[in-house]
Amino acid sequence: MKEKMLTGFRPTGKLHLGHLHGNINNMIKNQKNYENFFFLVDWHALSTEYQNPKNIKTDLMECVADLVALGIDPEFTHLYRQSDIPQISELTLYFSMITPIPWLERCPTYKEQISELKSKDLSTLGFLSYPVLMAADILIVNSDIIPVGEDQLPHLEITREIARRFNYLYGKYFTEPKEMLSKATRVPGIDGRKMSKSYNNAIFLADDFETIRRKVRMMITDPGRVYLKDPGHPEVCNVFDFYKIYKEEGIEEIENRCKQGKIGCTECKDEISAIIYKSLEKFQEKRNEIKKDLNYVYDILEEGKIKVRKIADRIISDVRKKMGID
Amino acid sequence: MKEKMLTGFRPTGKLHLGHLHGNINNMIKNQKNYENFFFLVDWHALSTEYQNPKNIKTDLMECVADLVALGIDPEFTHLYRQSDIPQISELTLYFSMITPIPWLERCPTYKEQISELKSKDLSTLGFLSYPVLMAADILIVNSDIIPVGEDQLPHLEITREIARRFNYLYGKYFTEPKEMLSKATRVPGIDGRKMSKSYNNAIFLADDFETIRRKVRMMITDPGRVYLKDPGHPEVCNVFDFYKIYKEEGIEEIENRCKQGKIGCTECKDEISAIIYKSLEKFQEKRNEIKKDLNYVYDILEEGKIKVRKIADRIISDVRKKMGID
Repeated sequence: MKEKMLTGFRPTGKLHLGHLHGNINNMIKNQKNYENFFFLVDWHALSTEYQNPKNIKTDLMECVADLVALGIDPEFTHLYRQSDIPQISELTLYFSMITPIPWLERCPTYKEQISELKSKDLSTLGFLSYPVLMAADILIVNSDIIPVGEDQLPHLEITREIARRFNYLYGKYFTEPKEMLSKATRVPGIDGRKMSKSYNNAIFLADDFETIRRKVRMMITDPGRVYLKDPGHPEVCNVFDFYKIYKEEGIEEIENRCKQGKIGCTECKDEISAIIYKSLEKFQEKRNEIKKDLNYVYDILEEGKIKVRKIADRIISDVRKKMGID
Repeated sequence: MKEKMLTGFRPTGKLHLGHLHGNINNMIKNQKNYENFFFLVDWHALSTEYQNPKNIKTDLMECVADLVALGIDPEFTHLYRQSDIPQISELTLYFSMITPIPWLERCPTYKEQISELKSKDLSTLGFLSYPVLMAADILIVNSDIIPVGEDQLPHLEITREIARRFNYLYGKYFTEPKEMLSKATRVPGIDGRKMSKSYNNAIFLADDFETIRRKVRMMITDPGRVYLKDPGHPEVCNVFDFYKIYKEEGIEEIENRCKQGKIGCTECKDEISAIIYKSLEKFQEKRNEIKKDLNYVYDILEEGKIKVRKIADRIISDVRKKMGID
């Protein structure tokens, strides 16, 4: 039997290159080696967007359409909405009974986010409980492997502590999930900061060639290079970061041409724009097809819902037995 | 349409006189004037008993059998288990998103119980979230009226605050429930402290006459009265408290006989024992009948489950729409 791998994904609307190279590519590459659970965390989204949640639903559908067009394959992957599995909320409740508050308060991301996202009022119970909801997300299917970035490790550790505490109190039942540290490639936005929809600096997977070219042209390359013939410095150039992502072979050539002042920034930008657009063409075709019949997306989510609910039902029923309230 | 009245009841096993005069009598008396929701809070029980929950289930069945024998009538009252309505956990999750932690921390009962129940480790998320779960209990059926003791008022106020906040953020939907301050009669246990199963000082509704007499005989009456002919002081006598509860008429007679030294404590005790037992006879008959066929109790809980789930489903579906994740 294949091991279970689970990934939660925040439904942020149309996907951009940051998402693709962040973890979706990894996920698709590994798809056939695991039984995959890939779910859209609309409840987690609520925990920060609760004051203005009206975009969550449309963002979610855009996101799923993109994922399917990218190649998430329902044959290997259960694709579902978190909120379609109400058993997760029940498991969250049970876990909350056995989770000491200090485990949550000492979580490094907790205080960090509270101070960073000052514009939103996040001193809520839901925000404090985030890691418990995450533990329920994972353990409701008893997943074996979780691909995470380093910043998510403390959360995963809480999941393991909850699993361990449950097993200690009520008898061995939950798997302690292992992390798979994913090498997410950092993709710069057109302003040099991390690519993010909220920074308004993203190249979307659905952008046409002209849009991509326009966006790439706005990027800052090498402030020290005034004339075409001046030698360039690829190591400080944001555009060169894209070459590193898209052109594993032949990258020395463009590097040398830049350093020797043999290629101008505009030419260099247009060249990478074309490469990026080319890499997205097949996706965009499929995306347009799906757009014509959104029922296809609904059906996939419906199928995911049915299959995962079945798994979740069995787990909840076992948990109730173990806790003596069956 | 009748107003909805909701009461949660901790499944503590066999009921005793403290329960009966505490709120069950009130509840039964009012039964026909409302659409009643009477539920056994097994999840709340878990929030303090999580380290040793194995009695919750049998305690719950004993308790329901007692309630039915006392006259809780399924025609007027939905009788159900909290854990049979998983929608409550989902609503708890949604409410947790909009509940500021300080609302919970400043709740007077919170710190009090943490320091009083030191033997149990209650610094858990579940214990902090208790009032949010309670809000979900109440609002999952949009109840109008909640009978409470004074000590429960701060919790009910949090329920109203959550309802208000939800209505403010997502549009008017929830009723702000009103309290009905119930005049619970304090029943002393046989050691003079509040009657409670855990103090081991209770007279159970199922006790036979000999057991009741034996227990009442252990009670302390008037330490100042040494000889039968000494004048007694009913105002300090625990047994007299029972007369006050059971003998509204003719109470002056017993008071005078005591004060004049005309009745001895043993005689007085046996007299009240007989009165208590007499008041329970009909209940005990019915209780024995039910004992023969526990399916009757299961059926009542099953019916309650089905009816209340239907109400809860509608409310959850409305809430999802309001919060934008339908």
